[in-house]
Amino acid sequence: MTDLVTVVGVVGSDPRHTVTATGLPITNFRLASTRRYFDRETGKWADGDTNWFTVASFRQLALNTARSLRKGERVVVHGRLRVRAWETGERSGTAIEIDADSIGHDLSWGVAVYTKTVGARA
Amino acid sequence: MTDLVTVVGVVGSDPRHTVTATGLPITNFRLASTRRYFDRETGKWADGDTNWFTVASFRQLALNTARSLRKGERVVVHGRLRVRAWETGERSGTAIEIDADSIGHDLSWGVAVYTKTVGARA
Amino acid sequence: MTDLVTVVGVVGSDPRHTVTATGLPITNFRLASTRRYFDRETGKWADGDTNWFTVASFRQLALNTARSLRKGERVVVHGRLRVRAWETGERSGTAIEIDADSIGHDLSWGVAVYTKTVGARA
Amino acid sequence: MTDLVTVVGVVGSDPRHTVTATGLPITNFRLASTRRYFDRETGKWADGDTNWFTVASFRQLALNTARSLRKGERVVVHGRLRVRAWETGERSGTAIEIDADSIGHDLSWGVAVYTKTVGARA
Repeated sequence: MTDLVTVVGVVGSDPRHTVTATGLPITNFRLASTRRYFDRETGKWADGDTNWFTVASFRQLALNTARSLRKGERVVVHGRLRVRAWETGERSGTAIEIDADSIGHDLSWGVAVYTKTVGARA
Repeated sequence: MTDLVTVVGVVGSDPRHTVTATGLPITNFRLASTRRYFDRETGKWADGDTNWFTVASFRQLALNTARSLRKGERVVVHGRLRVRAWETGERSGTAIEIDADSIGHDLSWGVAVYTKTVGARA
Repeated sequence: MTDLVTVVGVVGSDPRHTVTATGLPITNFRLASTRRYFDRETGKWADGDTNWFTVASFRQLALNTARSLRKGERVVVHGRLRVRAWETGERSGTAIEIDADSIGHDLSWGVAVYTKTVGARA
Repeated sequence: MTDLVTVVGVVGSDPRHTVTATGLPITNFRLASTRRYFDRETGKWADGDTNWFTVASFRQLALNTARSLRKGERVVVHGRLRVRAWETGERSGTAIEIDADSIGHDLSWGVAVYTKTVGARA
């Protein structure tokens, strides 16, 4: 039960929804998390580095995420980290993905009207 | 930066909103988190124990939580644990509180329409 | 996979080791975690509230914890929160337990010599 | 206070200790975390994907990590994720680092003898 992470941040791209050949709904989006720290010099809170993640959701969560999230909205995401090596032709790198267990709009920055979907956790 | 926890669960009471004498908005609600586990005997997922928490939110998060959350809704809550001893007359005990940094409706179970509030993080 | 927590703190009691009638090794100890915060008034870090937990470990982790941990040592504990109601005669209350997945001495405060045990994860 | 993660895994390289020009002690090592899951087909726990991280530690934690950790040992690491873009000549990519707050040998797999260091948290 390791590598679980909670990231609070901003949706950096409109969610992209697909369905696999086997019928599995998947929704992906980019998530930016910027560290806030207290700057002793200025005596104020300031922005630090930004981490970028790719969030992946599946099944009912994928369907609801596609219907509910828009670029620029604030969210809280809880899930499992996946660090993956990739290679396309001459380029290679590492991608950081979060396989989400839960995604919600962050009520620190807005209000939400919530409607249960039938057959949740399909 | 320790004692941070993310709890995914069900809102167990309608949020109770108050404002302190100094003008600080506070919203509290009860949160029930039930562990899910894979039962090898039956070959199915089953419900385990339920943890009950009191969630406390402050300022803008308190205002938005009071307007957005209802008993029975599914949420994801991220914040700091506080284990507090209490005593009222002859009875005493320990209360477990989460001072929330972020609260959101869990999109695993429903869809949400989100509206940013002016002056967020007031 | 919710209610997981990582607590960094001080061992508050010598570990107590028992074996159940069915042969399950269990080791418990008290753990104190004190929040550190930056005091803007003084411009220095200061101690905040202290959370007390009961940590429970089982099997190989219980055996190794009993052999390795002493009161006053600094540790990092990762595991699942359990909030439990208890009642003994006229008194009742709530206990906060961490069912530990991993326990380690915190190298922020000391050095450690580590020896693998045979048949780990028994 | 986001992007905190706890990773339980195996030290994948002997720690590399350096001191910056300004006198800051730094110790880095590679950390491999392999997900365990219950395979319903076989009815047994099995190994899943492995995540690789670079762990960075500073000051007293760096000094103690360099003295205490060896490749192949089991550890629990708690810290802040940093996702960093890098570029060297024609190649570029993303690196995943954990800036460690706490590192400890995992007592699930071995026993430890711990000695406090003078001037901890220097």
